[in-house]
Amino acid sequence: MQSEMNRREFIKALGFGAASLAFPVLKCRSIFAADSKKKKPNFVIILADDLGYGDLGCYGHPTIRTPNLDRMAVEGQKWTDFYAADSVCTPSRAALLTGRLPVRSGMCNDEEPRVLFPYSAGGLPQSEITIAEALKPAGYKSACIGKWHLGHLPQYLPTNNGFDYFFGLPYSNDMDCKEKRAWTVEGLAEAKVDWFNVPLMRNEEIIERPAEQHTLTKRYTEEAVKFIRQNKDKPFFLYFPHTFPHTPLFASKDFEDKSRRGIYGDVVEELDWSVGQILKTLKGEGVADNTFVVFTSDNGPWLRQERFGGSAGPLRDGKGTTWEGGMREPCIMYWPGKIKPAVINDMGSMLDLLPTICALTGAKVPTDRVLDGYDLSSVLFGKGSSPRNVMFYHRGRMLYAVRKGLYKAHFFTRPGYLPKNAESEATKHDPPLLYDLGQDPSENFDVAAKHHEIIADIKKEAERHLANMIPGENQLIKRLDLPK
Amino acid sequence: MQSEMNRREFIKALGFGAASLAFPVLKCRSIFAADSKKKKPNFVIILADDLGYGDLGCYGHPTIRTPNLDRMAVEGQKWTDFYAADSVCTPSRAALLTGRLPVRSGMCNDEEPRVLFPYSAGGLPQSEITIAEALKPAGYKSACIGKWHLGHLPQYLPTNNGFDYFFGLPYSNDMDCKEKRAWTVEGLAEAKVDWFNVPLMRNEEIIERPAEQHTLTKRYTEEAVKFIRQNKDKPFFLYFPHTFPHTPLFASKDFEDKSRRGIYGDVVEELDWSVGQILKTLKGEGVADNTFVVFTSDNGPWLRQERFGGSAGPLRDGKGTTWEGGMREPCIMYWPGKIKPAVINDMGSMLDLLPTICALTGAKVPTDRVLDGYDLSSVLFGKGSSPRNVMFYHRGRMLYAVRKGLYKAHFFTRPGYLPKNAESEATKHDPPLLYDLGQDPSENFDVAAKHHEIIADIKKEAERHLANMIPGENQLIKRLDLPK
Repeated sequence: MQSEMNRREFIKALGFGAASLAFPVLKCRSIFAADSKKKKPNFVIILADDLGYGDLGCYGHPTIRTPNLDRMAVEGQKWTDFYAADSVCTPSRAALLTGRLPVRSGMCNDEEPRVLFPYSAGGLPQSEITIAEALKPAGYKSACIGKWHLGHLPQYLPTNNGFDYFFGLPYSNDMDCKEKRAWTVEGLAEAKVDWFNVPLMRNEEIIERPAEQHTLTKRYTEEAVKFIRQNKDKPFFLYFPHTFPHTPLFASKDFEDKSRRGIYGDVVEELDWSVGQILKTLKGEGVADNTFVVFTSDNGPWLRQERFGGSAGPLRDGKGTTWEGGMREPCIMYWPGKIKPAVINDMGSMLDLLPTICALTGAKVPTDRVLDGYDLSSVLFGKGSSPRNVMFYHRGRMLYAVRKGLYKAHFFTRPGYLPKNAESEATKHDPPLLYDLGQDPSENFDVAAKHHEIIADIKKEAERHLANMIPGENQLIKRLDLPK
Repeated sequence: MQSEMNRREFIKALGFGAASLAFPVLKCRSIFAADSKKKKPNFVIILADDLGYGDLGCYGHPTIRTPNLDRMAVEGQKWTDFYAADSVCTPSRAALLTGRLPVRSGMCNDEEPRVLFPYSAGGLPQSEITIAEALKPAGYKSACIGKWHLGHLPQYLPTNNGFDYFFGLPYSNDMDCKEKRAWTVEGLAEAKVDWFNVPLMRNEEIIERPAEQHTLTKRYTEEAVKFIRQNKDKPFFLYFPHTFPHTPLFASKDFEDKSRRGIYGDVVEELDWSVGQILKTLKGEGVADNTFVVFTSDNGPWLRQERFGGSAGPLRDGKGTTWEGGMREPCIMYWPGKIKPAVINDMGSMLDLLPTICALTGAKVPTDRVLDGYDLSSVLFGKGSSPRNVMFYHRGRMLYAVRKGLYKAHFFTRPGYLPKNAESEATKHDPPLLYDLGQDPSENFDVAAKHHEIIADIKKEAERHLANMIPGENQLIKRLDLPK
């Protein structure tokens, strides 16, 4: 309903009539399918939570030290124009695992709640196909180690979404919190683990509550290393979505008070250590040259948290917004001997991971639904440029902005992620704001007045996109009948 | 006079009485001096003009491609906290070559003109000792190839300051300009070489006027390569201060319209190519392992020029200011087999180059004057941390801010580099603004209220510094009696 309003509103705003229907064509090459004797590649997707574009050494942070990720970036591909599919956790993660914009699965919402909360009754619909489910017929073992945030009722948990194993939190580490101080910057400075009654789960069982968050990164890493060791002879898929640097921030003894960037840096440096452990394990177990590793983040830095939030570097704004800082993320692709080391300025998105992984394994790409991703393997292997030339920036179920080539048009903008229950309105831009992200990656200089033809072209893209949009049932507004 | 006023004003602002006198102790180890048979190392200092902290790939720029500098950063040392000695051209260059704050040599001014102009009668005083002069007794051949900007009257030219050879511009590439459009962003988009009657010189002769700026980087590079080849058997010092990316921007045919960042990117990518040529030549001539190469910039990005100016990445403000964006610069130190590859978070400054170079060669460090630099060789060779723990940020002859350790106190701030003749006033801060540059490299969150003891300590540093300050005769206010 909201989305239908959005579509009508949008088409009206564009000044066009009925939008034409056009489905994107997905081309997925199955480079491993023909040779069934060749061992299928393993996949490791490491996802940081709220890490900003500027928070790693190799992306220019002046005080956070990330030697493992820096090395991975030099030996692999450092992508400069890689996008999350949304600017907040739940929708972004739904998109990563399904290759579909969250509006299609119903895993997003225009207003609060924009993510799932402990009171939520919804989750990733059974009808959606995750990467783990797509890989299952090909004999893959899959684990989700870390923060899930796609529904915490049993039917929505990882083990009911194609994963053989789950160890982690069902939602964000700041939830189940009755301590009001946790919602202020001053409070974050003195946050205690027991302010947050968040459960740690193994498969479908709660094994610790509240989760001892200081050792979460360490324990996730141990679990991930164990999973790799146990499954090195099978093809495996490790989905490793970290809890941090989402606030509240906790690091283990080895990292606490070690970084010049304070606790935020401590936490990111522990993530970097974790990445090092994974790469070391892959090498040690002799599977490094058959494992494709991706590192990225779910959305931009939570600027409201001030020194406890990250940095988008040169990009504008952060988490919760459709400015570049909200959705453009560090992304490193690594596969020794296979991926051609390079800095990649082509566009990519976490939406592209499912189609790429399917192409690399010969797994069946879901054809009964619209996918929003592309197979990036031509870029990975240095054989061509990215098939992605367009990025759609949704805020929940509404389309706010579209990038085509180097130009990005903002049809709507709205201030960053605001305190709970705060009201804010979208600002409509007609003509849209237009930025040349090549010359002006910080979105400082609106060039709409000079480029009517580019705006017209992007409007057509938007129109086609919305014409093709069948919104899923909104999962985020479903509520449990919890005792008050 | 101005400086004395500044000193009194400052000491008054601090609320202290007479400042104590204390001269900094310079320790310069002469690691090569003992072994006179060992060939002395060569030095190459490559200086960009107005390049911002965020303008290289390895410092996080999303659209400028700098593969040669990126590789140099990985194989050498990437410094994250390296400072220019001033936020504009002339004073910064004077400091680099002398190891002394420009207020001591008189090569700076609080108000316009803050740099030398074609009408200027001043220049680097003969009494100052440049790196080239310090190296001369040790048998070095020295060349300055590029933009000088330390005085264009004969007595001030490179060949009268210790350099055996000069090829380049005597001042900035936007000078000698009667075309008013050159001073607007719109004008820069259509700038022509003949708008700028700037001379190209060889030694003390003008060989081309106006200089054909499209091919300047290319020709500088050819000259630099030739100098290296001709002097590979002697110890040599190549000072290579580029003209770009100072506006107006011109690139050669091979680079024009090639970068996604527009002409600014074209120009920086041509500089990166030039760096590649230098490194290739050093290797090809068999002197790479005996040559210490430094790449840095004279000051931060000229933000007023919008898309024709650079980016300070995550740092605040740019050229002309004492915010970090004005004075913190990319810096890469490279010496294959000698310099230990690392990311260096220690503090360093272009002021430290002269003492470091003297230490590496056993050249005599001037002892009859105050130097403001430190020998950084312990950091270069992985043997210790930087001796620099304090940075003084002057705007012209006035001290505006002091960094000690991770904390920076701003006693004065003033808006960025304004259009010619525009008036602007310094804002005095009492108590000073205080930023923790570790946790908050973007200088967003003033923590003065929490750290009285740190402020008191930094005030003492400032007081000691000013007590020790004997300002040189102001060279920038001297004018030629030119026909109107």
